[in-house]
Amino acid sequence: MTTVVLLGTGNVATHLFNAFQQTKKIKVVQIFSRNISKNNVGNMNPIITDNLKELIDADLYIIAVSDDAIAQVSDQLQLKNKLVVHTSGSTPMAALNTKNRRGVFYPLQSFSKEKAVDFNKIPLCLEAESKGDETILEKVAKAITPKTYFISSEQRKAMHIAAVFVNNFVNHLYHIGNEICLEHHIPFEILQPLIQETAQKVQIINPVNAQTGPARRNDEKTINSQLEQLNNKTHKEIYELMTRSLIETYGREKL
Amino acid sequence: MTTVVLLGTGNVATHLFNAFQQTKKIKVVQIFSRNISKNNVGNMNPIITDNLKELIDADLYIIAVSDDAIAQVSDQLQLKNKLVVHTSGSTPMAALNTKNRRGVFYPLQSFSKEKAVDFNKIPLCLEAESKGDETILEKVAKAITPKTYFISSEQRKAMHIAAVFVNNFVNHLYHIGNEICLEHHIPFEILQPLIQETAQKVQIINPVNAQTGPARRNDEKTINSQLEQLNNKTHKEIYELMTRSLIETYGREKL
Ligand SMILES: NC(=O)c1ccc[n+]([C@@H]2O[C@H](COP(=O)([O-])OP(=O)(O)OC[C@H]3O[C@@H](n4cnc5c(N)ncnc54)[C@H](OP(=O)(O)O)[C@@H]3O)[C@@H](O)[C@H]2O)c1
Ligand SMILES: NC(=O)c1ccc[n+]([C@@H]2O[C@H](COP(=O)([O-])OP(=O)(O)OC[C@H]3O[C@@H](n4cnc5c(N)ncnc54)[C@H](OP(=O)(O)O)[C@@H]3O)[C@@H](O)[C@H]2O)c1
Repeated sequence: MTTVVLLGTGNVATHLFNAFQQTKKIKVVQIFSRNISKNNVGNMNPIITDNLKELIDADLYIIAVSDDAIAQVSDQLQLKNKLVVHTSGSTPMAALNTKNRRGVFYPLQSFSKEKAVDFNKIPLCLEAESKGDETILEKVAKAITPKTYFISSEQRKAMHIAAVFVNNFVNHLYHIGNEICLEHHIPFEILQPLIQETAQKVQIINPVNAQTGPARRNDEKTINSQLEQLNNKTHKEIYELMTRSLIETYGREKL
Repeated sequence: MTTVVLLGTGNVATHLFNAFQQTKKIKVVQIFSRNISKNNVGNMNPIITDNLKELIDADLYIIAVSDDAIAQVSDQLQLKNKLVVHTSGSTPMAALNTKNRRGVFYPLQSFSKEKAVDFNKIPLCLEAESKGDETILEKVAKAITPKTYFISSEQRKAMHIAAVFVNNFVNHLYHIGNEICLEHHIPFEILQPLIQETAQKVQIINPVNAQTGPARRNDEKTINSQLEQLNNKTHKEIYELMTRSLIETYGREKL
């Protein structure tokens, strides 16, 4: 059994805690919260502390706090030569204080507390400074998901940018679709199957081949008519730029 | 039993044909193809014609040809006072010749011939000029999907634009994510669960509330660092514009 101390009680810490509770291979022996009264999370309570000096011994310390607090929390740790990781996609391993053995334990998924997640399907991106620590991280990761990858800090930065495109920006496009529906009294649910199908398609077809639509066909008549109908200035700009990018990708030839 | 003549042998015609074959309520009595030898679709063969003058009698004629050929094909029909519909999201009902009763039978889904579709989950947007024709269209539609909606030409135009955002543009963002992965030797499969989760989330949470990421938090440090790392000029522009749009949506306040 591998023992873990979790630092933070936010989205990621909560979901990691729940995932670790499902397996006998991992024991969360302590949780750190800077604000216990606020984070009165029922089943976390017995092992919670708000004092970094009280951290107990464990095989692994997971700092799951906001990106800009990672370095600070890691500096404040009163530990030496312990395996300490953060869970951030956009923070290099080097942000952690060198007094401990450093690593990264980054779940590539978007979490919110309200929505349950199935960790089994979540890829965990791992990084460590030695083979031995890689083995520990892989053991902990494999206890909650089969999808584990060793990804360097450089690669992780790029992957996080890719995730911004396929998650954050995609969700914003859903929001714009919803706004257009609202404006015209169309139930957003009509778009749901299309949204699901679009996401599922790229599991089997490369997105470059899955592309359809007026911009893919360079169908100028439809493009211009749709642009004219958009009232929101920013929606128009997004339509123009995405169309230009599609035409750059697929060429100006009519298919 | 309602009888149907299908005009066209492209993506939509093929999938409609297959869906109609599954139900006893509809009989496809004929298919028109301008180019039979090219469209030598096995099980369509027996009832195929390339002569518009040979069209036989039916309750419904579905013109599933390219948008810019709809008006022309409808003009060439040697029929009078028949129910004739097109399947286009971006073409008004009025594009059809008035010598017949006009309507629209628009499946809101992205089709490609290679990928099987479950029509049961596809919303069909219907429009007709009379209650009687609405009833016929609804009967045909309900035979292949429970999701039927009466949507005016005006609404359909708006819905098609919304679909361009949540399907075409979303798929292009997947493509960009894939490109970034390729550039850094990261398997694109790592992003798959995130893509699925992002799409599934908006089935239960309004997209405006599902939003996460650096732009949502107005996290300037991450935004600037990610912008710097993007090499492709167009990817950079898309990142900038989507981030600006997100900040306009969620405000400039740090959360
Ligand atoms: N959310 C995601 O989708 C996601 C996905 C993958 C990775 N991550 C990464 O996981 C980490 C945590 O993200 P999250 O979404 O869980 O954030 P979160 O829900 O906002 O929670 C942040 C946690 O950090 C604590 N914290 C913030 N500043 C602190 C400080 N100075 N000292 C001590 N604790 C502090 C917060 O305590 P209070 O409650 O007292 O404020 C809270 O427990 C980040 O590195 C993030 O990049 C997030
Ligand atoms: N694909 C989608 O995702 C989708 C979704 C919803 C609605 N729609 C709409 O459905 C309609 C058909 O789209 P599709 O994707 O099935 O197109 P497609 O796969 O490109 O097929 C177009 C069909 O139209 C025929 N055609 C083109 N010009 C013609 C002409 N002048 N005279 C006679 N036939 C002609 C083609 O014949 P040849 O094979 O001989 O060229 C082909 O059979 C369009 O209105 C489209 O907007 C498409």
